[in-house]
Amino acid sequence: MAATTDAAPGNRLDRRKARTRAALIRAAQSFIAEGKLNVPILEITQAADIGLGSFYNHFESREQLFQVAVEDAVEVHADLLDHVTADIDDPAVVFAHSFRLTGRLHRLEPALSKVVLNSGLSLLGADMGLAPRARRDIARAVKAGRFTVQDLDLTMAVIVGAALSLGQLLHDQPERDDATATDQITEDLLRMLGLTAAQARKICSLPLPELDAVVPGGPA
Amino acid sequence: MAATTDAAPGNRLDRRKARTRAALIRAAQSFIAEGKLNVPILEITQAADIGLGSFYNHFESREQLFQVAVEDAVEVHADLLDHVTADIDDPAVVFAHSFRLTGRLHRLEPALSKVVLNSGLSLLGADMGLAPRARRDIARAVKAGRFTVQDLDLTMAVIVGAALSLGQLLHDQPERDDATATDQITEDLLRMLGLTAAQARKICSLPLPELDAVVPGGPA
Repeated sequence: MAATTDAAPGNRLDRRKARTRAALIRAAQSFIAEGKLNVPILEITQAADIGLGSFYNHFESREQLFQVAVEDAVEVHADLLDHVTADIDDPAVVFAHSFRLTGRLHRLEPALSKVVLNSGLSLLGADMGLAPRARRDIARAVKAGRFTVQDLDLTMAVIVGAALSLGQLLHDQPERDDATATDQITEDLLRMLGLTAAQARKICSLPLPELDAVVPGGPA
Repeated sequence: MAATTDAAPGNRLDRRKARTRAALIRAAQSFIAEGKLNVPILEITQAADIGLGSFYNHFESREQLFQVAVEDAVEVHADLLDHVTADIDDPAVVFAHSFRLTGRLHRLEPALSKVVLNSGLSLLGADMGLAPRARRDIARAVKAGRFTVQDLDLTMAVIVGAALSLGQLLHDQPERDDATATDQITEDLLRMLGLTAAQARKICSLPLPELDAVVPGGPA
């Protein structure tokens, strides 16, 4: 579950600390969504309606807060993906839907996307966020006989690399249609995962469910 | 052609300047190969056997020299790939050989590899080095009816992303066999490019030509 929606812990002090931390994370996500990555800590605490001194009870620096805020936003997106794909039986479609919906985030949340891309290849070993969910979906599809994978670590390296490259390409080529590009790369990856060209094309032309906003202040 | 082997320009002063520049690049490549990325400029000029002051006639900073040194080393590698694949008729095999030989560089030239990985996704739009050659090989294979590609830009995004992820994985998992991992990812990419699983496997088990050292001071 995402940090901003964490159930509050036991006693009153703990609950207040959790609320303050969540307010800082939400404020940071709003500034990130607006592309204001250089915002002073004072402005963040004012937006969160807390004292400047309280900041350092929760985070060592703006960079640390922003890191947590991005991880939280990615977790929220990942939870949304789980939610909108919960009723889909074919794990190959779950993977494809998730990749297609995630590719569309780069334009919907450009500042968040750029922060994620700056983290770059370190995401490869991340134990939270989207990579573990993609790994889970691919493993399920292998088990169901839908995908053929020799070495899941290596497959994940290609998937994560492709996801990052796609984001970079969409920023580098602003005139390019993001939905078409994302669906084409998903289709290419599905062939790599063992589907035929016709199967891959069909899955990537299925209608997608709607996603709600990933960060407060971002588009609905 | 690579900078260190550039034909000397016309007059004597120009030739001397080109020699000094090449000596600095060679010295930088040796330090990079040894992993000495923090070497002082004075040590670089001493290794190149030139005066400290001359450095700034050629480069603004150590970072700029190292950037040029890495690009030069990558160009040398790319030229070697062209050389050892020159007699191969099947462009699908040329692409596969090049990817397999490049994946093996991360362990052979770990410091060079890490510098390249730090440049990361900016390589996507690079107009020199390995990406344009991979694009050329893939385009040839498409023209020859070997590969099926809908959008070469998007295919290249996956290829570059996979190449970077592979390098990161080989550094993160030092116990992993680099040749096996590289060949498996190449095989996966060949399926994405339209080959059957059997064709992809066969191409990736072909014996590879030997490569000479990419940077002076690196392993032969």
